[in-house]
Amino acid sequence: MPTSPSRDLQTFKNPKPDRPYEIRMECPEFTCVCPVTGQPDFATIRLTYVPAELCVELKSLKLYLWAFRDEGTFHEAVTNRICDDLVKLLQPRFMEVVGDFAVRGGIHTVVVARHGKRPDAL
Amino acid sequence: MPTSPSRDLQTFKNPKPDRPYEIRMECPEFTCVCPVTGQPDFATIRLTYVPAELCVELKSLKLYLWAFRDEGTFHEAVTNRICDDLVKLLQPRFMEVVGDFAVRGGIHTVVVARHGKRPDAL
Amino acid sequence: MPTSPSRDLQTFKNPKPDRPYEIRMECPEFTCVCPVTGQPDFATIRLTYVPAELCVELKSLKLYLWAFRDEGTFHEAVTNRICDDLVKLLQPRFMEVVGDFAVRGGIHTVVVARHGKRPDAL
Amino acid sequence: MPTSPSRDLQTFKNPKPDRPYEIRMECPEFTCVCPVTGQPDFATIRLTYVPAELCVELKSLKLYLWAFRDEGTFHEAVTNRICDDLVKLLQPRFMEVVGDFAVRGGIHTVVVARHGKRPDAL
Amino acid sequence: MPTSPSRDLQTFKNPKPDRPYEIRMECPEFTCVCPVTGQPDFATIRLTYVPAELCVELKSLKLYLWAFRDEGTFHEAVTNRICDDLVKLLQPRFMEVVGDFAVRGGIHTVVVARHGKRPDAL
Amino acid sequence: MPTSPSRDLQTFKNPKPDRPYEIRMECPEFTCVCPVTGQPDFATIRLTYVPAELCVELKSLKLYLWAFRDEGTFHEAVTNRICDDLVKLLQPRFMEVVGDFAVRGGIHTVVVARHGKRPDAL
Amino acid sequence: MPTSPSRDLQTFKNPKPDRPYEIRMECPEFTCVCPVTGQPDFATIRLTYVPAELCVELKSLKLYLWAFRDEGTFHEAVTNRICDDLVKLLQPRFMEVVGDFAVRGGIHTVVVARHGKRPDAL
Amino acid sequence: MPTSPSRDLQTFKNPKPDRPYEIRMECPEFTCVCPVTGQPDFATIRLTYVPAELCVELKSLKLYLWAFRDEGTFHEAVTNRICDDLVKLLQPRFMEVVGDFAVRGGIHTVVVARHGKRPDAL
Amino acid sequence: MPTSPSRDLQTFKNPKPDRPYEIRMECPEFTCVCPVTGQPDFATIRLTYVPAELCVELKSLKLYLWAFRDEGTFHEAVTNRICDDLVKLLQPRFMEVVGDFAVRGGIHTVVVARHGKRPDAL
Amino acid sequence: MPTSPSRDLQTFKNPKPDRPYEIRMECPEFTCVCPVTGQPDFATIRLTYVPAELCVELKSLKLYLWAFRDEGTFHEAVTNRICDDLVKLLQPRFMEVVGDFAVRGGIHTVVVARHGKRPDAL
Repeated sequence: MPTSPSRDLQTFKNPKPDRPYEIRMECPEFTCVCPVTGQPDFATIRLTYVPAELCVELKSLKLYLWAFRDEGTFHEAVTNRICDDLVKLLQPRFMEVVGDFAVRGGIHTVVVARHGKRPDAL
Repeated sequence: MPTSPSRDLQTFKNPKPDRPYEIRMECPEFTCVCPVTGQPDFATIRLTYVPAELCVELKSLKLYLWAFRDEGTFHEAVTNRICDDLVKLLQPRFMEVVGDFAVRGGIHTVVVARHGKRPDAL
Repeated sequence: MPTSPSRDLQTFKNPKPDRPYEIRMECPEFTCVCPVTGQPDFATIRLTYVPAELCVELKSLKLYLWAFRDEGTFHEAVTNRICDDLVKLLQPRFMEVVGDFAVRGGIHTVVVARHGKRPDAL
Repeated sequence: MPTSPSRDLQTFKNPKPDRPYEIRMECPEFTCVCPVTGQPDFATIRLTYVPAELCVELKSLKLYLWAFRDEGTFHEAVTNRICDDLVKLLQPRFMEVVGDFAVRGGIHTVVVARHGKRPDAL
Repeated sequence: MPTSPSRDLQTFKNPKPDRPYEIRMECPEFTCVCPVTGQPDFATIRLTYVPAELCVELKSLKLYLWAFRDEGTFHEAVTNRICDDLVKLLQPRFMEVVGDFAVRGGIHTVVVARHGKRPDAL
Repeated sequence: MPTSPSRDLQTFKNPKPDRPYEIRMECPEFTCVCPVTGQPDFATIRLTYVPAELCVELKSLKLYLWAFRDEGTFHEAVTNRICDDLVKLLQPRFMEVVGDFAVRGGIHTVVVARHGKRPDAL
Repeated sequence: MPTSPSRDLQTFKNPKPDRPYEIRMECPEFTCVCPVTGQPDFATIRLTYVPAELCVELKSLKLYLWAFRDEGTFHEAVTNRICDDLVKLLQPRFMEVVGDFAVRGGIHTVVVARHGKRPDAL
Repeated sequence: MPTSPSRDLQTFKNPKPDRPYEIRMECPEFTCVCPVTGQPDFATIRLTYVPAELCVELKSLKLYLWAFRDEGTFHEAVTNRICDDLVKLLQPRFMEVVGDFAVRGGIHTVVVARHGKRPDAL
Repeated sequence: MPTSPSRDLQTFKNPKPDRPYEIRMECPEFTCVCPVTGQPDFATIRLTYVPAELCVELKSLKLYLWAFRDEGTFHEAVTNRICDDLVKLLQPRFMEVVGDFAVRGGIHTVVVARHGKRPDAL
Repeated sequence: MPTSPSRDLQTFKNPKPDRPYEIRMECPEFTCVCPVTGQPDFATIRLTYVPAELCVELKSLKLYLWAFRDEGTFHEAVTNRICDDLVKLLQPRFMEVVGDFAVRGGIHTVVVARHGKRPDAL
């Protein structure tokens, strides 16, 4: 993995900055590697955010998520890291990242990280 | 695209203006064009609104949405624009527009724009 | 259509008037006529109410809804009218009427009318 | 029908009386008789309760529900009666009984009776 | 069953202790034994928790749940016990344990135990 | 149970006797009694037949199936008996009766009885 | 009902008469009247046919099906009649008409009429 | 595991031995043990058979399947063994046993064993 | 529309020409125009083919289908034309094209065109 | 990717070699790389085979499929290659490999390769 995948994330100006509206993006094609066993992990990553000044550009997000393909990381850590990277990049009004991981040992794990409070109107 | 598709939107008088009730309309047949690549985009557009004095007429709404067929526009921009056009036209108690776009680059995007606050009784 | 379908609605005494409980009734067999084109419309009608002293009798409700078969009426108007008729008849603590109409012009329309506030315990 | 089906309901001591937790039980095999026409009715009965000192024993609940097989009773009445019987027996922190009845006259009816307020933590 | 299955539960340090985020784990492969009849019971166990300093390690959780295989225990008791064991181990901000048990006597039972209050942001 | 429920089955003349066409009828409201334990059983009964000279009348079929309510009979026996009664009554080109019974002892049972061969064109 | 709804059915020339291909049309908005009780019936009508020289025109098919709205007819008769009308009109290589009727008396009825043999290649 | 679980299987006389009809039984509560790792395996077992002189008794089948709880056996072996035991016991016209096993190593395995040929009429 | 969209279709050499295997491709993003009314139509196009020497290249197929966006064509004609274009291009062992069109006038239409016979092994 | 992932596939002796029975294995966690663009592809791989003397060992199959993670290969080629590798290894009575690939360019592709003929009894 590149030292910092977040370097590659691109933004564009929010076309409606005065309205607190919601953007949801679902990527079912996420894979990383278990740092202990070296075995691949698979997940669906779901983002929900309320932009302030900036939105994340779709193609760069795809490349950012692909960059985890060879990285060793735990479920709880990678979900929080994606949340941190996007919060730092976008400074959004609200951000939620869900990592929904494939079954391991007969157990299905989902991690939900949030930043900020969802605006009342949403 | 016509310079102003919203010109064609027709209204009729709300038959129950004293009751804050909800109207939901779903159009799975929406297509526009990516302004960067010129490739077609496909979406389902969902409206939910609480009318004040006016309701939007169904056939003119269909034609309004069809008018985006050749327009180049981003997901976030077109969802907010439809919301703005309908708010300007209807002056509703509440309006929500959801743009649910087909997968691009392995990512499924949904944009949710709202105007006003959903009345407590709803 | 009879001048007043609501004349035929029958009631029975609520067997538990001191408890604010909920009754939900779904009728997928509703049809009326478009007042502009004369074409038939189809809908599912869903009622949810919290009775006070009276409940609506099932068979008379069926006949009441069937009586719209030849009536020309708009989606928004007929949903509110059913709500008005039932509120006048039952004087309920809460009433919601949902009209879920078949696709016309590629658009699926749902109208939700409510009377009163759903009790906190429900 | 026995004069009082509720006589047969058995209880056991709540194994965790200090924690307000929820128990949900669904019985899709409920039948009674229409008191007017004598025709059989079919329903799914769903209970949700927060026990205080007592829980209802599963096998006796099954027998209690079976005892309605030959009883003539209306939808609204039988749902409230089951709620009353269980509240009297268990003195729970919260009780909800849902009667979800098979289609009659093209109409699907659901009755929801509740006793007490669902604790905040639930 | 071992005298104390909880002895085997392992933890790791929460990688993001300052953020109240949610972890959900679903295990559809749970079986224990009815203490009265000796017959096997089957359930899906679902955990949702907001960690404080510690997270539960996946493999040890699998082994902990497997250890109930030969234990005689009631639905209400085992769900509360798993909740107690995990609360004692993790001291979480919030913990919910759901035991969703296979049909017995035509009745499907679900038990939901919670500890603490779900943080507002979640 | 009446000595012979089949006495009550009514027929009407097949309106298209020269065409081998198919009639399917599904009744989810079937209940009988276990002849060993006396406990109620519940099933969905599904008929598929290709009529010759006669069709079964809907209302009498409903009453016929209701007549099993107090009869003690095994799954395999009752499914074959309904098939026999209908074959004797209708002398159809083809008859299939499916009894789909509710779970007992953690096992879901379906019995499928057929008479004759489904015509090639069907 | 008009004396002969089939008079109104329109056709167009099959654009690919040398290829035995399949056309399926589903109309969930069909209603007629029970000839005994005068009560409305509701159905979904499904056509599957392999055209020879002619195809049925969509709008005229819609009007043809609407024309049954006030006609009294049994399930078995109306399904066969639609099949007969379309076979007479189109002289197709194969025709199937399915009438899928709403529940009456707790029983769901489906009638399947076919004309000719589905070509081997289909 | 008992040396021979099949000893406990009970039969009853087929009530309709002259008709080749089908019996399907689904048991979602099957568990055994991996003979290599000692870890529990979970499966749904589905039987479909056409009886000759004998049918398998439901309660004894439940006990027979429960008896594998502590037995170490591979997926392919246990599915074929259940098929062999039932064929030996019942001498059926046709028997199919499906073992549908829970995910292991990210792979979901289903094994389908059959004996005899399904009769043409079925 | 270009005079001949099929000019743009690209092929690549079948990597396993000696094995009759199946390729299925589903494109839910198809739109064309009604030649009578000028209104847009929407469809999902599904291909299933058994290649001989050539396979169709994915990106050129996407562009080929997009090229119908401004073309006026009927449902039956466009489905057969796509089939013809692909058969001419690929000379496959078997080809099926399904056009599944959005509801018009309350009727949902599907057209299925096939070329050749599906090999026995498939 | 290793030069030959198939080297690592392990087998075990078929426990019932005289019976032609079916084994189905589904792996939703397959990823490889597009040989043209270098972008990751994702698929579910489904195997169905009728063993002769040998079965494929589950854990080695998992590792074999994981070995494609860094390999550049087309959809049609990789599905046929997995089929070839397994046929060479197992010499089965029948083998089917399905590669069900994630959407690219708005098109969902499935490739189905088979070896041998499914035995009549299956």
